[in-house]
Amino acid sequence: MFSAQDGANFYQLAQARRDMRHFVPNARVEPDVLERMLRAAHSAPSVGLMQPWRFLRITAPNLRTAIAQVVNDERQKTAEVLGERGQAFLKLKVEGIQECAELLVVALAPDDGTVFGRRTMPREMALCSVACAIQNLWLASRVENLGMGWVSMFDPAALAAALDLPDGAHPVAVLCIGPVPAFYDAPMLELEAWRLGRPLHELVSTNRWPSTD
Amino acid sequence: MFSAQDGANFYQLAQARRDMRHFVPNARVEPDVLERMLRAAHSAPSVGLMQPWRFLRITAPNLRTAIAQVVNDERQKTAEVLGERGQAFLKLKVEGIQECAELLVVALAPDDGTVFGRRTMPREMALCSVACAIQNLWLASRVENLGMGWVSMFDPAALAAALDLPDGAHPVAVLCIGPVPAFYDAPMLELEAWRLGRPLHELVSTNRWPSTD
Repeated sequence: MFSAQDGANFYQLAQARRDMRHFVPNARVEPDVLERMLRAAHSAPSVGLMQPWRFLRITAPNLRTAIAQVVNDERQKTAEVLGERGQAFLKLKVEGIQECAELLVVALAPDDGTVFGRRTMPREMALCSVACAIQNLWLASRVENLGMGWVSMFDPAALAAALDLPDGAHPVAVLCIGPVPAFYDAPMLELEAWRLGRPLHELVSTNRWPSTD
Repeated sequence: MFSAQDGANFYQLAQARRDMRHFVPNARVEPDVLERMLRAAHSAPSVGLMQPWRFLRITAPNLRTAIAQVVNDERQKTAEVLGERGQAFLKLKVEGIQECAELLVVALAPDDGTVFGRRTMPREMALCSVACAIQNLWLASRVENLGMGWVSMFDPAALAAALDLPDGAHPVAVLCIGPVPAFYDAPMLELEAWRLGRPLHELVSTNRWPSTD
């Protein structure tokens, strides 16, 4: 039985979690800390218990550099597509790949043919399972006073090639993890006036689609 | 700064979370409890701050019945595809739609054109954001001592039609939430000997794909 205080603690943690892009360089994460964070990730739900998440811990400097290059290539392409906002976009810090203490790549495993709960939405439900594991990892990072950033700015085929992933495996996230100078008070995209979040009440409704949408 | 005790509390919560299918009938969830759970969901990360989650709270009995029917139709189809395991599958309890205190449908909003962080994986990253919100909701339910089950056994087009969702919106989850007789000690699919989870170490490796896979 969890107490009201346990509830308050969890809500505080959920609100304090941030997508971090600024990290303390030359720092480290103790192996036992990373281990228990990964245990929390692995305790996530998965459709049909397929556990489609795979975690690649990147320690080789040449791989870190290759990943940074794949991300930077995509950053340039994103700026082109953004047109008049492209210059403002290029001023944003979007990742901390070279500075973060630990770099993980999370990939969706090749489909194992699980039917339970995913006959109609096979790829979607496997992806959602991986995302649940990553969200657990994010909360675990925060409660360990470590920052985490989910970088999704990459060409998945290029990243899969750089990491020599097997056929059917799809990289979903490059995760930068480690000590940070400070946690942002609000999402960095809000602090940088890139975009504001919407209030919850606009996204919830009873029995029908929200009329505010 | 979170303490070691805060960490232990979060890890306990993550491990205690279960995908529930058994609920106490005729129960209720207080509105303020549901509100703070949804606030936790809404504090999830989202790619480019697009917050693509929409929560439909289902209170109309006819809609609850319609949703149960859509899920049951898919349950029968799943049993057919499972072949020789179909009969064993049909004995499993896969949802608590008619008994749970609160029924929510979570949908992916029509694409708003966000490019940031999703130029190469637009649908995948929006889906992952919705899943992160659902995982927060799941942990919030558990810390409130309420069960939650994610039902993904439905034809999304049939469910969208039953709920009159706008073009481009995709239902991702039917969530059963409410008091439960007891939380399962392990994933129900393990307790029912349907499938066993794998140990974490098989799914983690350094610089390359796990060799155990």
